[in-house]
Parts: sequence; C-alpha cells; structure tokens
Amino acid sequence: MELLLPNSVNSTPLTTLGFLDRAAVAYGDSPSVVYSNVSYTWSQTHRRCLQMASSLTFLGVQRGQVVSVVAPNVPSMYELQFAVPMSGAVINNINTRHDANTLSALLQHSESKLVFVDHQSSSLILEAISLFPKNTKSPQLVLIDDEMEDSSGTRSLSSTVDFLDYYEGIMEDGDPKFKWVRPKSEWDPMVLNYTSGTTSCPKGVSLSHRAAFIITMNALVDWSVPNQPVYLWTLPIFHANGWSFPWGMAAVGGTNICLRKVDPPLIYRLIKKHKVTHMCAAPVVLNMLSNSRDLEPLDHPVQILTAGSPPPAPVLSRTESMGFEEWNKLPLAERARLKSRQGVNTVGLAEADVLHPDTGESVKHDGRTIGEVVLRGGSLMLGYLKDTEGTSKCMRENGWLYTGDVGPEVESVLYSHPAIDEAAVVAKPDKFWGETPCAFVSLKKDGELTRIPSEMEIIQYCRDKLPHYMAPKTVVFQNELPKTSTGKVQKFILREIAKAMT
Amino acid sequence: MELLLPNSVNSTPLTTLGFLDRAAVAYGDSPSVVYSNVSYTWSQTHRRCLQMASSLTFLGVQRGQVVSVVAPNVPSMYELQFAVPMSGAVINNINTRHDANTLSALLQHSESKLVFVDHQSSSLILEAISLFPKNTKSPQLVLIDDEMEDSSGTRSLSSTVDFLDYYEGIMEDGDPKFKWVRPKSEWDPMVLNYTSGTTSCPKGVSLSHRAAFIITMNALVDWSVPNQPVYLWTLPIFHANGWSFPWGMAAVGGTNICLRKVDPPLIYRLIKKHKVTHMCAAPVVLNMLSNSRDLEPLDHPVQILTAGSPPPAPVLSRTESMGFEEWNKLPLAERARLKSRQGVNTVGLAEADVLHPDTGESVKHDGRTIGEVVLRGGSLMLGYLKDTEGTSKCMRENGWLYTGDVGPEVESVLYSHPAIDEAAVVAKPDKFWGETPCAFVSLKKDGELTRIPSEMEIIQYCRDKLPHYMAPKTVVFQNELPKTSTGKVQKFILREIAKAMT
Repeated sequence: MELLLPNSVNSTPLTTLGFLDRAAVAYGDSPSVVYSNVSYTWSQTHRRCLQMASSLTFLGVQRGQVVSVVAPNVPSMYELQFAVPMSGAVINNINTRHDANTLSALLQHSESKLVFVDHQSSSLILEAISLFPKNTKSPQLVLIDDEMEDSSGTRSLSSTVDFLDYYEGIMEDGDPKFKWVRPKSEWDPMVLNYTSGTTSCPKGVSLSHRAAFIITMNALVDWSVPNQPVYLWTLPIFHANGWSFPWGMAAVGGTNICLRKVDPPLIYRLIKKHKVTHMCAAPVVLNMLSNSRDLEPLDHPVQILTAGSPPPAPVLSRTESMGFEEWNKLPLAERARLKSRQGVNTVGLAEADVLHPDTGESVKHDGRTIGEVVLRGGSLMLGYLKDTEGTSKCMRENGWLYTGDVGPEVESVLYSHPAIDEAAVVAKPDKFWGETPCAFVSLKKDGELTRIPSEMEIIQYCRDKLPHYMAPKTVVFQNELPKTSTGKVQKFILREIAKAMT
Repeated sequence: MELLLPNSVNSTPLTTLGFLDRAAVAYGDSPSVVYSNVSYTWSQTHRRCLQMASSLTFLGVQRGQVVSVVAPNVPSMYELQFAVPMSGAVINNINTRHDANTLSALLQHSESKLVFVDHQSSSLILEAISLFPKNTKSPQLVLIDDEMEDSSGTRSLSSTVDFLDYYEGIMEDGDPKFKWVRPKSEWDPMVLNYTSGTTSCPKGVSLSHRAAFIITMNALVDWSVPNQPVYLWTLPIFHANGWSFPWGMAAVGGTNICLRKVDPPLIYRLIKKHKVTHMCAAPVVLNMLSNSRDLEPLDHPVQILTAGSPPPAPVLSRTESMGFEEWNKLPLAERARLKSRQGVNTVGLAEADVLHPDTGESVKHDGRTIGEVVLRGGSLMLGYLKDTEGTSKCMRENGWLYTGDVGPEVESVLYSHPAIDEAAVVAKPDKFWGETPCAFVSLKKDGELTRIPSEMEIIQYCRDKLPHYMAPKTVVFQNELPKTSTGKVQKFILREIAKAMT
C-alpha cells in the first residue's frame, strides 16, 4: 500500500493541556474546583490558567525552563498543573514535607526559575534559598496565600522583600486571551518529578507531553472514570502528579474538591457536602479513615482507588462497611496475576515482562528463578535529569525499563494472611541461588490477632499458594515497615537490611 | 532544562493491538465474544487472533499489504480487526451492501491480497472478481461459514474452486505462539476504510496505528465506558471500524455480543439473555427498536450511544420509556454548543474551529457568516489512498482538515421542532451573502402531526433559538432525506439540490 506520511494536520503534538480548552466549552458552566467557600467553573479555571501562563511569560519564564511549586492541594496547586506548562515551562511539584536542605538541593538541581510557595512553607523556602551557594542565581518567589486560613503571619508581603507578589496578584496581571505555548514536539518535557527516595537519593524524573497524555488517558480508561465525577483530592498532587488526575478531571469535566491536609472528620464532611463520588487514597489514608472515631456510615457510595501496596484486607473491609467501594473492579485473582506476571501492564504500556537478572531472558516458564519486572511503552519517563548514568542503568539498550521490582504477587499472598498487617518482599543475596525472596512483615495489633505465626508457618502459607521459587525463604518481623510520607514502603532500606543479613 | 531525547524504551509505537495481549492476562477467563451458542474467553480470542495472523503470514501476506473483509458482525469479523493488523497487513472492512461493481472497484483500488467473505456474500465476491480486468491479479478468497445458519448452499467448497479454504480451516493451521508483527512506526497504516459516499465517490481513508490508539482511548473516555461492559454489536464493524469499539472492548475486557443483522425481536432477546449494558445505534436503528410491536420494557437499563445526526426527540423519548438510557450524558445545551462551535472536538483532538470559507479566519466572533468546521489532531486520518489531490484539498497546508460541515447546531434546533422527523442543513450559494443555510426536513407521519408547519414558521422557530445568521433562509420539505445504508444523510445530494435552486 502506498505509504502516506504524517502531515501538519494529523501530527500535532499529544498533550493534556488541550483538555482544559475543551472543558471550557463542553463543561463551561459546571464546577471545576471547589475549596471551602471558593468555587470556580471550567470556563473560569480556563481563563485563570491562561492568565497565569501569560504572567509567567511576562515574568521572563521561557520554554523548557523549570517552575516549581511547594503547596498542598489548594486551588492554585491545581491551576498550576495547567498554567505552568501552558507558558511553555516545565512543572516541578515538590513535596511540602521536605526539609530545607533537600528543598534547596532540588531547586538547585532543576535550576528552577520561579517557585510558587504555600504560605505555610514560606519560612522553609527562605531557609532553602539561604542554602544556595554564593553567586548562584536563586529563583523568583511567589506566595500562595490562603484566604480560608488564618495566615496573618504571612499575608503582608512587607514582612519580607523576598517574595515577588501574591499568587492572586500575579494572576490579575495576566491576559485571559493569552494563546498558550504549545510544545514544539510531543517529546518536549512537561513535568519534572523528584522521586520520593524509596530506592536511593532523589532523582529528577522527566515526563514528556506525550507521556502525560498517555498516562492520563490510561488512568481514565483503566479506572473507568465516568463523565463529571466529584473527585476529592486526598492524594497529594505533588505525589506523581496526583496520578495524572489534575489533567484527567479536565478531560471528563469533573469537580475537584480541594483540601489542605488529610483530616478524617473534614474528609467525611466534604464527602457529604459535595456528594463526592471518587477519591484516590493510599492505604495509610484508608487506615486513618477506617480508624476515625464516632463516624456515621456514608449516605452514598464513594469509589476509592488505592495503588502501590495493596491495602490490608481488614482495612478494606472496614472502609467498605462505611460505604467506600473499591474502584478498580478486577477480580482479585486476576489483579494478582496481572501484577506479578505482567508488572503493572496497562492499556497505555506497550509491553511488560519478568526477566532473569543475569541472562536477560524472560522467566515466564522458568520455575526456579526470581525475575525483575521490566516495562516499555509511551507512558514511561524520558529519563532522569542530568543523570545519564542513572538513566542508562534503568532504561537499557535492550529496550526495557528495569523497575527494580521482584515478585509483587508474593506480597498479595502475604497480605491475605490473617495475622499480617503490612508486607514487602525484596531480593536477598544468596551464594547458591544468586538471590532469594525475603519478606518483611508487620503483624496486626493484639486485638485482631488470635496467635502469632512463626517464620516457617508464613513461608509454608506462601508455598501453598505460589510456585515454590516465588515463596520467601526468609521472613523478617518488624513493628512497622519503613515508609515515605505518602505511605510507600521504603524498599531500599529493606534491601540494605536483607543484604546485611547474609 | 537539559533536553532528554526519546529512546527505545519509551518510544515504542502506539497501537491498539497490545490491548489484546493485556486482555488475555487481565481478563483471560472472562467472556470475549458471544454469538448464538458459541462463546470465547479473552485468552481464547487472543490465541485465535495470533493463529490467524500467523496463517496470513504463511499465506504470503506482507507488511503494509491490504487484506479485506466482507462480513456482518460475526465472531470472525471481530477477530480479524486484530488478526489482520497483527500480521502486519492493513485491514479493509467493506460494506456488505455494496454491489459487485463497487466491490470490484474497491478491491482493485486497494490492491487487496486476500479477502475474507461471509457465505452470504460468496456469489457477490465471485461476480466482483469476474469484473477484474484481464491480466490483473485477483485476491485470494477465504470463506467465512456460519455454523449458526443454514448455509448449505456454500458449505461445500467443492462447489467452487475459487475459495482457498474456510475461515476455521485457515485458523487451525496457525501458530498460537506467533509473535505478532509490530508496526515499525506508529504512523504505519493499520486501517483502510472506504467512505460511504455521502460527499462524493468512495475514497480510501487510511488510518495509522497511532490514530487508532488515540481514537479508541478517546471513545472510551468520552463515552465513559466502564470495565467489563456487555456490548451488543448493532453497529456494523465495517462502518468506521465500529467506532473503534472492537479494540475498545479489548481495552476494558468487555463481552462482545455478535449479531448478523439488525432485527428488533432478536435484539430484545439478546439484551435480556446476556444482560447487555451498552450498545451503539444509529438513529435509524433506534427508530426500528422504538417502533417494534408487542415488546415488553427491558428488565435492566441499557446505555445507548448515538452519533452522527441526533436522534429525533420522540424517538429518543420512546426508546427511553423502554429502558434505554442515553449514554452520552452531557447536558443538551452543552452538546449543541460543543457541536456547533467546536465541531466534534473530543479529548483526542488537538483543536477545532469554524473558519470563513474565503478568508480562512475564525468566525467565532462574527455574527454574519457561516463557517466550515475544521479540525486538527492525532485522531485524524493519514490521508486518502492514491488520491494526493483529494488529500491536499481536505488536509490543507494551513494545518487544518476541512470537514465540509456547516452549522450542526441548526440541525439540533430543527430536530427539536415538534413536527420535524428528520433534518439536515447545507450551504446554498447566494449572490449577496456568498452562501446561506438551507434546511432539508421531513415531517412526522400523520398520526403524530397535529398540523403542517409552513417554511416561514420553521425559519422563525430557528431564529427564536439561534443567532440570526445561523437560522436557515430556505426550508425544503421532503418525504424522506436521502441516506446511506447506515442511516447517514447524504449531504452531497442535498448540496446539489440546493445549488440547482439558485
């Protein structure tokens, strides 16, 4: 067949930013962002993002430069996920819980030109800037004030000359008819995320416009997000771009219910008041919700999505009895199978496999060796910023991204054990096998526990349910597994412990 | 920021074919395709498609060559949407209602190497082949038999030596472990669809793997398709690839309920038997369903999606009273606004606009001129096969695809008139204005009609609801509007009539 080549009509770069243009037309009068007694419509959010993008351009931010944000899930944080890349810049969301040293290091590494800072982090940012080496240009600072809170300590900019202006002041100067800066190529970077440090020191993960588009569409399809959901922002946007839902909510015209921190009574109030239909929640958040006192059951069902480590069964059953429903409806066995054999394969990924660490061959039909989950596809990162070695160690010339994950199916089985509260499995060096699976578990609290299982009992439990080679050969009991602020188990710590044990 | 370039890990070509690999893992034991008393699971469908793809390769079909199918919505038709492109070939679905002349012309134009033919079209294909010029190589033929039907006339291949084998015979020879042929580039053609001739003689629309991916993800998101729906195939797959749902159902692990023809009693039986949750239906199908006699209301709601011309309000209200629910839940006013001002803008399109035919400027803020809906984005075609002139006339150097559509909002308003059954608006040449909107309408049947409205009355009705310039200046009454076999109004005929009137 005659080969037709792409042309200027069909090869416009993929990006999530156009979702906002469309939301302003398709859902113009519907609510977009709600926070306390502030409420915007999609046409207002569209206008505000264009204004902010135009202001950033006016302030000298150029295509490809980094603009950072240190803020919780307030409306400005939501808007900046569009406004920053609409100015052509790269959005870098920073965890609000970093200390001044880490914050300073990240800002220097990214060469950030401008930082939006929540008023609660204003002293932190000034300390971080003070740690910049002399003769290093520091970024411009914009203060995000919060009319909903008592922020009297920071509301007067006269107290410090370090801030350029308030967020709303910068916004007001912008042009609502600004033509947003489209990427020249869909491979242009749109996002810079620093890893939370579960594996090693933070790395700057760069995502392209194309990857953001694929990840977002994928999340909407995989998680069956309907039109116009009411979405509660319990998951920090600074954590992996809030699993792409800032852009996803524009695609489906949803309502974003913002909140500053995870506070169970407030969450229950917001769910009732706004008739929340969907929320993402790390297992740690679900646990808080299910342990919260004096709470009535919900008056309508709420779909919850949990990712990362699976929530322990009792947590899930307690939250379900409150009216929360698990959003991802795949049968449990299918999910476990999917996770273990195909990594986190989704419709947006091209391929996933489990490879032998030495031979690089697929271990699918090998009953003896633990493999590493590898991935390829358009939803993966461009690479690590300024870290050619780190990038090529992870994204190899054989066309696979090495995730460092082994045998997640083992964890599912451990979680199904009635005495186990938390579980994580890492590879432990072994003279004979090369490496063997080592499980770290914490047990349930006294009230929920009838008896304490032995190491051998847990190993046998796994052997009954898994191929022999996948069952852990060692079980380490801990009071609590080491976790990041977002509830993700810090496997690099566990790997160090396992290594030290050999 | 340092520019990171795409690499072999993250730049694998976008395609919908991987959805089937994933469905075999994530939904392996769930039903994929059901037809009469035949039922497959996703792992079976996966295996069968790989077998068929390997057989095609064995039969000499090469990357980029065209393989055609002339069949209704039977299981083989579904499988071929994956199997043909998995062999590296381009799938060309042909309308079963074409005559031998048209069929012959399309097969010659596409240089099709192999044609799968439903047993009911076996004489037709032989006639079409007989019309090939001498010394032209004709395609290989494979017969799709149907065990569910009395096809005794064609079940014995000895009656004709023109067929290579039966579909299942070809299938059996295939290798279920075949590694499917991935596209070298996501811009490689995957689909060749001939237009139904609403605008002129049929053109071969070529779609890339990338476009198929974007269109499918877009359809799933825009239409809020949940995980594992039960989808009834009332829409022909040969019509615009069944709006991408063959691939979409694999992405969400749905069940495809096949049926050979649109037969209301059968449709009602299948809905009940399989607990159908979703179906697409052209207005003409909805009309048949709502006019079918002696039917009980559904025992569960069915989401229906109608595209193209909007279904007349009474048809919609009759079908809704039966238990069908409109799938696309945007408020009517938003939908009309979206359609008229932004064309058919969806999350998969980059941009849409309405341009003045002479100046090429946006008419958004012009209250006097009719414009043409133009589009750009990754879901658009590569171009027309072997028709450079047609392609460049439609996909212009200014980066827009010209749709030939004017003012769809007018049609929505016309459909809301209580006396109007069908409506279509085209541009009519005008000495003073350049062109003016001309409406073609058919009125409801006597029983539903209290009185017959005048031309001026309909014009006034539109003027009350629309900007003055959008309201038709002429109304032509017809008994029935000219339509294609899939129920799409043939506007090119109406344009000819309008032109002749000036």
